[in-house]
Amino acid sequence: MSPVRGRLIALEGIDGCGKSTQARILAAHLGAVRTFEPGATPLGSALRALVLDPGAVPLSDRAEALLLAADRAQHVAQVIEPALAAGRWVVTDRYSASTLAYQGYGRGLDRGELESLVAWATSGLRPDLTVLLDLPVAVAAARRHGGRPDRMESEAGDFHQRVADGFRTLAAATADPWLVVDASGPVDAVAGSIRAAVDALDGSDGDPGGVR
Amino acid sequence: MSPVRGRLIALEGIDGCGKSTQARILAAHLGAVRTFEPGATPLGSALRALVLDPGAVPLSDRAEALLLAADRAQHVAQVIEPALAAGRWVVTDRYSASTLAYQGYGRGLDRGELESLVAWATSGLRPDLTVLLDLPVAVAAARRHGGRPDRMESEAGDFHQRVADGFRTLAAATADPWLVVDASGPVDAVAGSIRAAVDALDGSDGDPGGVR
Repeated sequence: MSPVRGRLIALEGIDGCGKSTQARILAAHLGAVRTFEPGATPLGSALRALVLDPGAVPLSDRAEALLLAADRAQHVAQVIEPALAAGRWVVTDRYSASTLAYQGYGRGLDRGELESLVAWATSGLRPDLTVLLDLPVAVAAARRHGGRPDRMESEAGDFHQRVADGFRTLAAATADPWLVVDASGPVDAVAGSIRAAVDALDGSDGDPGGVR
Repeated sequence: MSPVRGRLIALEGIDGCGKSTQARILAAHLGAVRTFEPGATPLGSALRALVLDPGAVPLSDRAEALLLAADRAQHVAQVIEPALAAGRWVVTDRYSASTLAYQGYGRGLDRGELESLVAWATSGLRPDLTVLLDLPVAVAAARRHGGRPDRMESEAGDFHQRVADGFRTLAAATADPWLVVDASGPVDAVAGSIRAAVDALDGSDGDPGGVR
């Protein structure tokens, strides 16, 4: 008998909002596969360098979106879908909403066209829950570690504001399940809010809870 | 006054059909920009290695199509469109039809979806003429130089047959202008056929012929 299919939880938000910390805590709680975009596959690792290294190569807005879609297509095919099919839950640090927020609201590409692109890249795989870790841009910037900012981080401040506003708009407008969490609180409080939403999801669709 | 916009000529066909030779001859005749896919930009060069180097990285069919679309998006933005806008003609060794032939007919991805992808990647830029250099698969294979075959070349024979048949179907079915040339003849005869079709195009739409 094939295992009960796992669930996909995506953590989203601007850089510095605490996604990777919360992904680690949530994945440990669930015993889930923890992964991320871009860069979780060998292909993705090469693409991440092309997209994020400052001054790597000239990159048009559409080429950038297509590289991130390629990263996601390989991520779904090689990591996420096999894990879900094997009954594992998957927690990913970024997924499709990041493309809509960064390349749509940030770069100004048409969001309907980006939605079609993302749907094709993922073969239609949508998260069972998307969690937005909401934090003011200035707070997130102050939280980020020092060091050389990557290509996205070094965009001007209004780019990050458009992305942050875009995430909020996406969370409010979509028919898909989103949880918006105030990410300015203590790590444990944020983790507790996420855990409560995910645990509610757990029992919601016939999953006996024993197979993950 | 802005220059009369240039024209885009795409040479297509399976590996070994003589595209690069004919692109060189045609570009010299026209005084055109000669270019190619994948790999004509710094981004494309990195992507070409990921797509064509045997065993570079695991690559799903959709990720492969998206990488080639990213290569094309950057190629259009950085090379083709600026040249056309400056009044130059452009001759490219491969363009959108290769995606439909290789990833559609070859890999089996949905061709309507690939058409949407290609249209988005190119911002809708279509060739003024696509030339198919038609050659039997066995003849093309014998013509290819020795050395290690790349990732596409090392596909099984029926893959190449599907691609070759796909190119013929595309040439017959599309509303866009195609020229199908028997590429088994002498290089000069093939070049003469292409030149005649392109020269006819030259005078067809108000281009005074003086600005290229």
